[in-house]
Amino acid sequence: MNTEKNTPEAAPLDHSSVEWVAAALDSQHPADTADELENLSLAEQLEYIREMDVEDAAESITEMERHERSVLMTTLSPSFAAAILEVMSPDDAADILEDLSEEVRSRIFKKLDREDAEEISDLLQFDPDSAGGVMNTEILALDQDMNAQQAITLIRDRVEESEIPYYAYIVDEFRHLKGVLSLRDLLLSPGRTILKELLHEQNLIYVSFDVDKEEVARLISRYNFFALPVVDHEQRLLGMVTVDDVIDIIQEEASEDMQSMVGAGADETVDSPWTYSLGKRLPWLVLNVLNSAMSAFVVHLFEGTIAQMAILAALMPIVANQAGNTGQQSLAVMIRQLAMERFNRKKSWVAVAREAKIGVANGAIVGTLVFAGLFAWSHNAALAGVMAVSLGLDMFIGAVAGASIPLILKEIGRDPAQASSIFLTTLTDSLGFFTFLGLAALFLF
Amino acid sequence: MNTEKNTPEAAPLDHSSVEWVAAALDSQHPADTADELENLSLAEQLEYIREMDVEDAAESITEMERHERSVLMTTLSPSFAAAILEVMSPDDAADILEDLSEEVRSRIFKKLDREDAEEISDLLQFDPDSAGGVMNTEILALDQDMNAQQAITLIRDRVEESEIPYYAYIVDEFRHLKGVLSLRDLLLSPGRTILKELLHEQNLIYVSFDVDKEEVARLISRYNFFALPVVDHEQRLLGMVTVDDVIDIIQEEASEDMQSMVGAGADETVDSPWTYSLGKRLPWLVLNVLNSAMSAFVVHLFEGTIAQMAILAALMPIVANQAGNTGQQSLAVMIRQLAMERFNRKKSWVAVAREAKIGVANGAIVGTLVFAGLFAWSHNAALAGVMAVSLGLDMFIGAVAGASIPLILKEIGRDPAQASSIFLTTLTDSLGFFTFLGLAALFLF
Repeated sequence: MNTEKNTPEAAPLDHSSVEWVAAALDSQHPADTADELENLSLAEQLEYIREMDVEDAAESITEMERHERSVLMTTLSPSFAAAILEVMSPDDAADILEDLSEEVRSRIFKKLDREDAEEISDLLQFDPDSAGGVMNTEILALDQDMNAQQAITLIRDRVEESEIPYYAYIVDEFRHLKGVLSLRDLLLSPGRTILKELLHEQNLIYVSFDVDKEEVARLISRYNFFALPVVDHEQRLLGMVTVDDVIDIIQEEASEDMQSMVGAGADETVDSPWTYSLGKRLPWLVLNVLNSAMSAFVVHLFEGTIAQMAILAALMPIVANQAGNTGQQSLAVMIRQLAMERFNRKKSWVAVAREAKIGVANGAIVGTLVFAGLFAWSHNAALAGVMAVSLGLDMFIGAVAGASIPLILKEIGRDPAQASSIFLTTLTDSLGFFTFLGLAALFLF
Repeated sequence: MNTEKNTPEAAPLDHSSVEWVAAALDSQHPADTADELENLSLAEQLEYIREMDVEDAAESITEMERHERSVLMTTLSPSFAAAILEVMSPDDAADILEDLSEEVRSRIFKKLDREDAEEISDLLQFDPDSAGGVMNTEILALDQDMNAQQAITLIRDRVEESEIPYYAYIVDEFRHLKGVLSLRDLLLSPGRTILKELLHEQNLIYVSFDVDKEEVARLISRYNFFALPVVDHEQRLLGMVTVDDVIDIIQEEASEDMQSMVGAGADETVDSPWTYSLGKRLPWLVLNVLNSAMSAFVVHLFEGTIAQMAILAALMPIVANQAGNTGQQSLAVMIRQLAMERFNRKKSWVAVAREAKIGVANGAIVGTLVFAGLFAWSHNAALAGVMAVSLGLDMFIGAVAGASIPLILKEIGRDPAQASSIFLTTLTDSLGFFTFLGLAALFLF
């Protein structure tokens, strides 16, 4: 036999190892095929898919970007789409169907064989943002009265048809979850040991199907699990969430936070249709104009002051911009905190106090620098003083607001990131203009 | 035996399942002990640690937040610190030592036993942001001339002393990586099969120790691996990066991107000392003042115009703010794109074109709305026209700049996120003020 072509030595050693990795990948890896598909026109995609065998097509479509995938699935004939969905794992099939229009979905459903249709339709009942919505249902459940040798034999038999089971879930005759055993536990046990006995002193950790998927991700990441079982309200085993799903959840959450903070669509990518992005962003930009109109109104109140001393118009954006930036720093740190750790109200408000302290210090230091610079340039101590005080004050307000806004949004049950940057700059702009122009009106004339 | 206390039925079923999960966790789980430790004073931490057995202490310290952990390790006596590090996996020990001052580190090194010291010191040679810096070295390497039965026996023997091996790495007599086998592969093979023969037709995927850790994370996440082997430049097996490390890398990267975008420290958390955060943020805030001074200078050039028509001072922040927000939306989407996918120059510039298109559409729509609103309020078509045109134009510029800045930073070898929001708003402020006041000076007088 020839193993040479697949061993490292077969590849040139002199170029960058990252490139080598790409070269070494089987070109048929579904993730790579999905990339190729995305670069083709729809007509070419259809032709490509029809030439593939149905398993390969299913795996590649699973890896495609959501929008592209939906367009492709909608274009396929319902019976061909159904054939593809039938060879997928039911949770992947449900994810794909979820994105399709109701009409297309029901057309495809009619072509699915009955058992698959039922399984997928059960999965579609779960909230897609819950543990039930992201779980895999192809799991290995072993009866607690089996012995270790029987379990290993069963795994050997089943392993060819499904994924490698890292964990086997141990259930009673009503499928109530009783424990979790790893392959390691099974390999280490004497063959005659009854599984039930191996569960002794085990901390069984699982989640209910209705737990938020981000909470599931936090648990798996915190405890370094490879998978977490999902149960119904009677503790019956439904499925499991695996660590590779968790990676996707974490990546999605990071995109959601970063993008929705500034009012872009939470699920936008550079592959989304541009009109989709437009629709997501426009409402927030319109809100932002209305908010800016508020701060413009503040300036409008001081038009008389500005007409007398137009330099104020030049300086006031510095105050607003600087406070906005200070606040965004606090905002970013708080949003990440909320994303990574379970919400802890006390700890969060302690964090606000910490941001306030940083805001005071930054405000004092930058205020002093600006006083020195502006005084050197204008020789106007009163002007420099008004600028420095309003700048320092607004930076402090920015820090407190930036840290508080995500918490307030969270407390009222909203996404802590959503448009938070827009709310923040509305506040820092308005208050910045008001303090600066107000102090100027009081002390400079 | 009593299995009751560990089965689900032992817990009340009526309260929220998320809370139940917390209650079910063994209170001795290292991640939880680490949390408890972080809530204690340093003196209390020392007392707590001394009461724990050294393995538990090591596991809990590994899970602690970096700053807290460094303070604690610095306070422990060097010989106690060394005893704790010796029972850790060498890569965890290296991570901890990396954060300590050189002086403390060398004091602890003197107390480490020679073999551990060498292993840890080898690991410290690797760039902490590379595959070598995050890999685990406790791996299962099997000789390619072994047969499957021997391999399984060896795994059974070794499994008690180390982590469960999901993959066994197959090497030749010089430790050159020849292939990877999963437990599944081994369990499925006839006992007498020589491992070398199982590697037939395998796509061996690995990375060199100097590959960036974020690239490793992307590979593992893209191909849904549980671990990826790390080799030296002669393809000799060094270690592996596992999926739980990848989760940490992805979380860190998301925090870095979001925080460094606005000039906060990439590795800041709400647990960092506040002076640390201050030091990270202040330089960018000072840069931001200097940048704002630039846009202030633009306004300063038009002071005559503003003195004649102070309403301009009220309207110009709307232009700047709106363009800044539009640009930040593009910025966020691009930074996430760069974080999640391997860099593809062509695709990235196509994405800039996409953002430009969205910018034009948003600019046209918001510009039209603002024209209507401002005309209704001021009955001044020229003013409303100048406002609408400069707003639309600056929003377009913001979108293009927001999408391009991360790419430009990337092309010149910088972090695509670093202070990108600051660069962006400098541009949108200056250009916004310039177009608006310039057009006003031309058309309104």
